[in-house]
Amino acid sequence: MAIHFKQMTIIGVGLIGGSLGMIVRRERLAETVVGVGRRIDNLKTAVEVGAIDRYVSDPRDGVRDADLVILATPVDTYEQHLTQWGNLLQPQAIVSDVGSVKGNLVIQAENRLPALIRFVGAHPIAGKEKTGVAAGSVTLFQGARCIVTPTPRTDPEALRMITELWERTGSTVLSMDPFLHDRILGAVSHLPHVAAFSLVNALAEVRDRLAPDLDLRLHSGGGLRDTTRIAASSPEMWRDICLWNRDNLVQLIEVYERHLRHLKELIRSGDGPGLEKELEQAKMVREQLNGQPA
Amino acid sequence: MAIHFKQMTIIGVGLIGGSLGMIVRRERLAETVVGVGRRIDNLKTAVEVGAIDRYVSDPRDGVRDADLVILATPVDTYEQHLTQWGNLLQPQAIVSDVGSVKGNLVIQAENRLPALIRFVGAHPIAGKEKTGVAAGSVTLFQGARCIVTPTPRTDPEALRMITELWERTGSTVLSMDPFLHDRILGAVSHLPHVAAFSLVNALAEVRDRLAPDLDLRLHSGGGLRDTTRIAASSPEMWRDICLWNRDNLVQLIEVYERHLRHLKELIRSGDGPGLEKELEQAKMVREQLNGQPA
Repeated sequence: MAIHFKQMTIIGVGLIGGSLGMIVRRERLAETVVGVGRRIDNLKTAVEVGAIDRYVSDPRDGVRDADLVILATPVDTYEQHLTQWGNLLQPQAIVSDVGSVKGNLVIQAENRLPALIRFVGAHPIAGKEKTGVAAGSVTLFQGARCIVTPTPRTDPEALRMITELWERTGSTVLSMDPFLHDRILGAVSHLPHVAAFSLVNALAEVRDRLAPDLDLRLHSGGGLRDTTRIAASSPEMWRDICLWNRDNLVQLIEVYERHLRHLKELIRSGDGPGLEKELEQAKMVREQLNGQPA
Repeated sequence: MAIHFKQMTIIGVGLIGGSLGMIVRRERLAETVVGVGRRIDNLKTAVEVGAIDRYVSDPRDGVRDADLVILATPVDTYEQHLTQWGNLLQPQAIVSDVGSVKGNLVIQAENRLPALIRFVGAHPIAGKEKTGVAAGSVTLFQGARCIVTPTPRTDPEALRMITELWERTGSTVLSMDPFLHDRILGAVSHLPHVAAFSLVNALAEVRDRLAPDLDLRLHSGGGLRDTTRIAASSPEMWRDICLWNRDNLVQLIEVYERHLRHLKELIRSGDGPGLEKELEQAKMVREQLNGQPA
């Protein structure tokens, strides 16, 4: 049976929430899409670009009649939100999210919500270089992946509906334990971001010490731009991701520090064969990443 | 007066040397272009794709009649080459190169060559993901930058000619001290490579420990691919770059390690405001890199 919701309410109508709203409206997956947010300007834009049918500014008014609520605000606000309006939800309503961390956040959401409310954690992995609903698009999730993170407490029917919702956006949906999600995303996404943030800040320091007037742009080829592109990601969002995935990330950074120190020692001691071996391994691993998943 | 050489000899006819040969032949900047290399197959390909007019396998035969010799072999071979055939060159012949490190390498070349031979260090900064003369192209250097690195011993006329040669390839030519070149390229190119090599090797370790069967490709979005793309660069070439720029690179890695450790401590201690400040700075610096040079 195809999914159909009476009212989907999106809390936080930005790039991700807004793009999902556009798709749900176009595909008629819900009778009404309601947006909730603090900035009226933004909500008006959301109506204009077709992301929502209407909006309210008080989330309590927004969720009362919803059978699906999508939390698309910064993950640090979840607790406050769920505490504020969790008790107003209809029995059997589904609450889902789009946050980049899961683990404890999913457990917290489950604990905050009344027993008859069904929570399903979800993480659509979509490009986030642009922000805001005006940059939203019905194609944002096409060909992307979305990870859903059920727990033993997750209602199977709600999981099926959220899975289908994200499949209808054109994403491939994977299911995994929320804590495994954080370990994997910590490695393939959070650690590379920390590496890029640190690299850019180190380069700024070197520039300021070496030659403040020097324009690094003159000398930076494609390599530097690619390597550091993700360093321009949202500071607020990444602050929250770093803190919510703290334990994994600290461990991962330490593995990275060890490899970096090893390479430094090979360079310092002039160990050509040792260096070449490390670089050959890096090339091999990197080339595996280019292939298609098995 | 436009440049015109009697015979340009390219030692090492790969992607860079071969592409330069194609341009020199098409633009008739030399009467003859001679290739020197160890693999006859490769030299035959070089003739077929129009990179050279003819080839010899003994560099001594190749350089005798040349008024311009381009060293396009790995930088570790320069000394052996210059010792082998430096004395056979015609007086006033120009020797130049395409190496990614300069500094001591330029001084070494100047010291190895007889007094009447004119050395000019050059570093065309071109994409090096593909290799081999078959991937060569007359457009490889278009819009790229080439750095020439004169010293007090550099002949001004030879510098002018090498500058014009690279301008004719479509590159913008910058001139700087060879040691400053290594400090700058160490920061904007060599350090990002070391960061990418280490990151990829750290991820491989994490994958092997976390779940050997796990296919990281399933979970790696564009961010990881971009950040680590340069980790697939040539291990031999990067071994040499790391070793020839050893002192700068060790210093730079230590600056990077310091920034990484600082970020780790902010994460470990849960310092949200401190973390956000670091990420905001990274975003600001990174966005400067996107702009056009002043």
